[in-house]
Amino acid sequence: MMITSQAWLWLSILAGAVSVGMAGYLYAWVNRQDPGSERAREVATWIREGATSYLRRLYSALGLLALALGVVIAIVFSLDIENLGLRTLQFDPSRGAVVAVAYVFGALCSSLAGYMGMSVAVAANVRTATAADDGLGPAFRVSFLGGAVMGLATVGIAVLGMSTIFMLTHDPEIVLGFSFGASGLALLAKAGGGIYTKTADIAADLVGKVEVGIPEDDPRNPAVIADNVGDNVGDVAGTGADIFDSYVASSVAVMLLGATVFSGNAVEQLRYTVFPLVLCTLGIVASILGLQFVRVSEGGKPGAALNRGTVVTCIIFAALATVVVWAGGYNLGALLATLAGLIAGVLIGFTSDYFTSPGQSPVTNTARVSGSGAAINIIMGFSYGLVSIVPSLIGIALSTLLSYTVAQHFGLSGVYGVGVAAVGMLSISGMIVSADAYGPIVDNARGIAEMAGMRHEIIEISDELDSAGNTAKAITKGFSISAAALTVLALFAAYAEVVAARGVELTISLRDPLVVAGTLLGAMTPPLFSALTMLSVTGNAFAMIEEIRRQFRERPAILEGKEMPDYAKCVGLAAQDALKSLIIPALLAVVFPVLIGLVLGPEALGGFLGGSIFTGVIFALFMANAGGLWDNAKKYIEAGAYGGVGSEAHKASVVGDTVGDPFKDTAGPSLNTLITVMSLVSSLFAPVIAVFHLL
Amino acid sequence: MMITSQAWLWLSILAGAVSVGMAGYLYAWVNRQDPGSERAREVATWIREGATSYLRRLYSALGLLALALGVVIAIVFSLDIENLGLRTLQFDPSRGAVVAVAYVFGALCSSLAGYMGMSVAVAANVRTATAADDGLGPAFRVSFLGGAVMGLATVGIAVLGMSTIFMLTHDPEIVLGFSFGASGLALLAKAGGGIYTKTADIAADLVGKVEVGIPEDDPRNPAVIADNVGDNVGDVAGTGADIFDSYVASSVAVMLLGATVFSGNAVEQLRYTVFPLVLCTLGIVASILGLQFVRVSEGGKPGAALNRGTVVTCIIFAALATVVVWAGGYNLGALLATLAGLIAGVLIGFTSDYFTSPGQSPVTNTARVSGSGAAINIIMGFSYGLVSIVPSLIGIALSTLLSYTVAQHFGLSGVYGVGVAAVGMLSISGMIVSADAYGPIVDNARGIAEMAGMRHEIIEISDELDSAGNTAKAITKGFSISAAALTVLALFAAYAEVVAARGVELTISLRDPLVVAGTLLGAMTPPLFSALTMLSVTGNAFAMIEEIRRQFRERPAILEGKEMPDYAKCVGLAAQDALKSLIIPALLAVVFPVLIGLVLGPEALGGFLGGSIFTGVIFALFMANAGGLWDNAKKYIEAGAYGGVGSEAHKASVVGDTVGDPFKDTAGPSLNTLITVMSLVSSLFAPVIAVFHLL
Repeated sequence: MMITSQAWLWLSILAGAVSVGMAGYLYAWVNRQDPGSERAREVATWIREGATSYLRRLYSALGLLALALGVVIAIVFSLDIENLGLRTLQFDPSRGAVVAVAYVFGALCSSLAGYMGMSVAVAANVRTATAADDGLGPAFRVSFLGGAVMGLATVGIAVLGMSTIFMLTHDPEIVLGFSFGASGLALLAKAGGGIYTKTADIAADLVGKVEVGIPEDDPRNPAVIADNVGDNVGDVAGTGADIFDSYVASSVAVMLLGATVFSGNAVEQLRYTVFPLVLCTLGIVASILGLQFVRVSEGGKPGAALNRGTVVTCIIFAALATVVVWAGGYNLGALLATLAGLIAGVLIGFTSDYFTSPGQSPVTNTARVSGSGAAINIIMGFSYGLVSIVPSLIGIALSTLLSYTVAQHFGLSGVYGVGVAAVGMLSISGMIVSADAYGPIVDNARGIAEMAGMRHEIIEISDELDSAGNTAKAITKGFSISAAALTVLALFAAYAEVVAARGVELTISLRDPLVVAGTLLGAMTPPLFSALTMLSVTGNAFAMIEEIRRQFRERPAILEGKEMPDYAKCVGLAAQDALKSLIIPALLAVVFPVLIGLVLGPEALGGFLGGSIFTGVIFALFMANAGGLWDNAKKYIEAGAYGGVGSEAHKASVVGDTVGDPFKDTAGPSLNTLITVMSLVSSLFAPVIAVFHLL
Repeated sequence: MMITSQAWLWLSILAGAVSVGMAGYLYAWVNRQDPGSERAREVATWIREGATSYLRRLYSALGLLALALGVVIAIVFSLDIENLGLRTLQFDPSRGAVVAVAYVFGALCSSLAGYMGMSVAVAANVRTATAADDGLGPAFRVSFLGGAVMGLATVGIAVLGMSTIFMLTHDPEIVLGFSFGASGLALLAKAGGGIYTKTADIAADLVGKVEVGIPEDDPRNPAVIADNVGDNVGDVAGTGADIFDSYVASSVAVMLLGATVFSGNAVEQLRYTVFPLVLCTLGIVASILGLQFVRVSEGGKPGAALNRGTVVTCIIFAALATVVVWAGGYNLGALLATLAGLIAGVLIGFTSDYFTSPGQSPVTNTARVSGSGAAINIIMGFSYGLVSIVPSLIGIALSTLLSYTVAQHFGLSGVYGVGVAAVGMLSISGMIVSADAYGPIVDNARGIAEMAGMRHEIIEISDELDSAGNTAKAITKGFSISAAALTVLALFAAYAEVVAARGVELTISLRDPLVVAGTLLGAMTPPLFSALTMLSVTGNAFAMIEEIRRQFRERPAILEGKEMPDYAKCVGLAAQDALKSLIIPALLAVVFPVLIGLVLGPEALGGFLGGSIFTGVIFALFMANAGGLWDNAKKYIEAGAYGGVGSEAHKASVVGDTVGDPFKDTAGPSLNTLITVMSLVSSLFAPVIAVFHLL
């Protein structure tokens, strides 16, 4: 049975709608669960209000920015560049407007996915804690289905948006506008959330634990709510926006490549331009089926259940893709590239896990030397973090070569194969995001249980749920960074194709000094970006520390537990400072590449993108893994090894963990979004840059 | 007056001989100075014996390795590849033997330079301490002239070696063999020395200061001599070998480029092949003159004297180069490229200084937040370290573009211009190495003064000398990393030319998946290399800690000061472990690039080199600057800021300093040598790789 491309577009819209519908259904289900005692509900309300107020501020600030950039896009894409002396370009005001609308629509969709995920997270957290009263199984069910709302909403909205735009315009460059809107917002949501969460975390810890000696999550700490809000805005909203962005960008890259490399044959062109949406559709079906396999009975293992879900989803997806490619008469190379990406993604995810797993030698060695002080703990974790990039980089290099070669072997374009591998990797995002969003929900549930003074068994159950969340998170990180790498490699190819279509044949040769200069500047950008976000964290944390000290000083009754601290003040401060800190990084991501392209030319911009991919991937992996390793080395000691809690080794491991916090939660996670945004902005402005260069 | 190329070769041999002669004269002068009290001489003897025994072990181990590699080179270069079906290659056994001899000769010369420098350092240290009895001026004079022995020996031996080989063979590819010998040895000397010095330092501190509470440099500590030996083998022998290696490699790159790009005209070809040796000759003259300006009278500033020497040398060199290019009828582009390199090198050196200077905000901010704990200190230093790469990378990118453009503008080959810029930067190495080698001499002098129980004023003078040494070191590091970057860019171009000469026209395009895969693997190598060396440091330090504890446990009289600890045991342990730790990094540097070239082809190897340059430069700068910053933040607090010695801020800054130690003294400094070695091994094996690829 052959399904036409038009029919596939309708099917993908349907799949998107079903996914969003299911997310809505689960959202309602979560909300129907018991919200628990009055005290628990009160704590949950503070968190919910803090999180929503931050998101509202973020979105209104970013909304203005998006509108302003939309106007720029509308103007640039309306320029009648042909009259400036160019060949085949067809620009007109209506096209400008359409690209701008797609851009704003992308930003809106990305916000919506983040907002839905966060709304359910701040409802699921307290309900998970309450359900833990009935045991592990029910608590896991509430938290995982809460995560699934995020997973299904993310992929559903993404596919709905892309399919609708393509259905209406049949022009992948307009879908590119949508993708840029989504990624630009994702970058700021991710970086802003990352700064917010670690600002609050570090400030709360430094004054609370170190200066006045109250435990973590103690309600007397004025920053405690900001800390819990941070988990939601950083982890849930940020990660959702992040995967949304890679998911859309990889599909768009393949659509662009499909439209250019098959330009000789209109039917084939349409088939292979729509092919990524076909894969997304199958991925949604596989994820929805896979979610059914994630169940934990009493005494079961939550981590095993999450992994089971991922593996089942992969198998279903692979089977579906095989059937569709065979029955639909697609090129076999496309199937093999898809599977190469999928398998590489899973393997990379699981090998990353080795470097951060409590039982493996990187973590145990780091824990072991901690008895000799914080410095050794940090040198070890730092070194293992650098070693941890090796399997992923080899995996990315191999999957690039493999997908390129198989695609070419079967007569497809090689770069199209690389793009399809990225889409293959990301096709199971529905499941991956569900497992990932589960983490902060159980983390928050633990915090609420503590603050609301629930009984000890509940906190133990939360701890067990939490440790499964950490493993899922490690796998997701390796997975999403590798997927971003393949995505930007495909976008990179798409960039060159878009420029070539404007009559500038790019040779991005490392023997050209302009390319070398561009590559050096590109390679410099990701480390600079991470440094700027981390300096914001330390700077903002010190502002908040002053505020916490002020509250303790001016109202001593707070520390005696007789008076409520002013939580809202800290929540507001964290939000305001995080937003301010985004200005320079945002300029770096959007303005710098365009500037390089205009001043040094499109070849140098090609080098710039290449350079940013190489160091972006390296720093993203290194920071994520080193952070995870330090965290687990501390937990390993806390579980009783090398002297346990209170020993010198433990003190040292706490320092390592604190260093790792902004690595893994602020600087690292933004980097894959950064390189995606820079690639998208380059592809989007490629026609203008090419034209400027030809003038 | 025109000087023929042949005459220039004789002049450069003369300049090399004069430089070596002067080094010998100064060496004798240093040895004639008063070696001080019996106690001081005894301590100095321990250090000298430890250092010489380590160097002897290092050189005998490396000698075997060099001989083995020499045999491989002899065989490979003797292969009659033409009969395997190739065009113009002319290989014969006698050529193989000549390349191998040049290679071994390079390794020998590099060892000799390191050995001379270290011999004078272990004589000058105690004499500096003794001269401090007469005041700052005499002490500065002994230590600086000791450093000058190293500086003059390094450049003298390098120029003598290169000129002689070229005079005899007129074949730059044989000088390439010499360069590879020098760099291969430099890499192992640098990495081995770096591992040695930090192993001893960390072990001595952790048991001495932390566990039993005795001060730094206390003679009761069994590792104290190993620690002081480490300063010599790490800083003096290592740095000398390092600059030797860039100095030779940049000259060879230009010689190779000169021989290929001017191949149409035999006279011009010879003139521009010899041109880098002309610049080296002028640089030696400028450095010898510049050394005369480095004097400190009583109450003067040692740091200012060192900077004055550098600036005067630059001016003299620029004037000489201008005269020679004008009078000799060389292309004006060559002069401008030389000056571009020279100016960029100095500017990069001085801007790097900003990030590590005690008075500037990166250091003071890091010191200020230290009161809130070690973690914040580390996050801050880490972030500023990443920001510190920005001026250097922009400087490298600009000087590449500038030298390329001016060379091309005046009708020279652009890549030749980039190479000349590297030689221009390194031309003043005689002066730079002198100022750099001065640092460890005064550092050691301080240790001896402490251990020999000299009076307090002498230690104060040593401290003042030492702080000037740190500034000189920071400038040298920025300078030598940038020079290495330009050198490897020139080598990279030379690699492509060598391959092209064998009939394989390389397009190292970032749109080629093989190049992308190669670049990813290349980008991974420098971080992996630094991680491996740092893991060796921590591993070896723990072995030594066990040994120190054993001595204290089995012979309690040591701690009471009644019995001498077994210094030799620690010295031997550090040496043995450091040598063992070199095996994997050495394989990574030499075997990995050849493997990539053979398996993935010469284009992928081109990408590999490109990738290694980008991350190599970034990590080298980041690690050097972050390490320097933490060190100076600690010193800033020790000088009384934010609570001074003993405060919480001070404890935190000590952790930062300890983390920074292996960054700046082990992992960072080897990276520029690593990328040089990988570029050289690629250029050297390029014909074989090209031939293999054509088969």
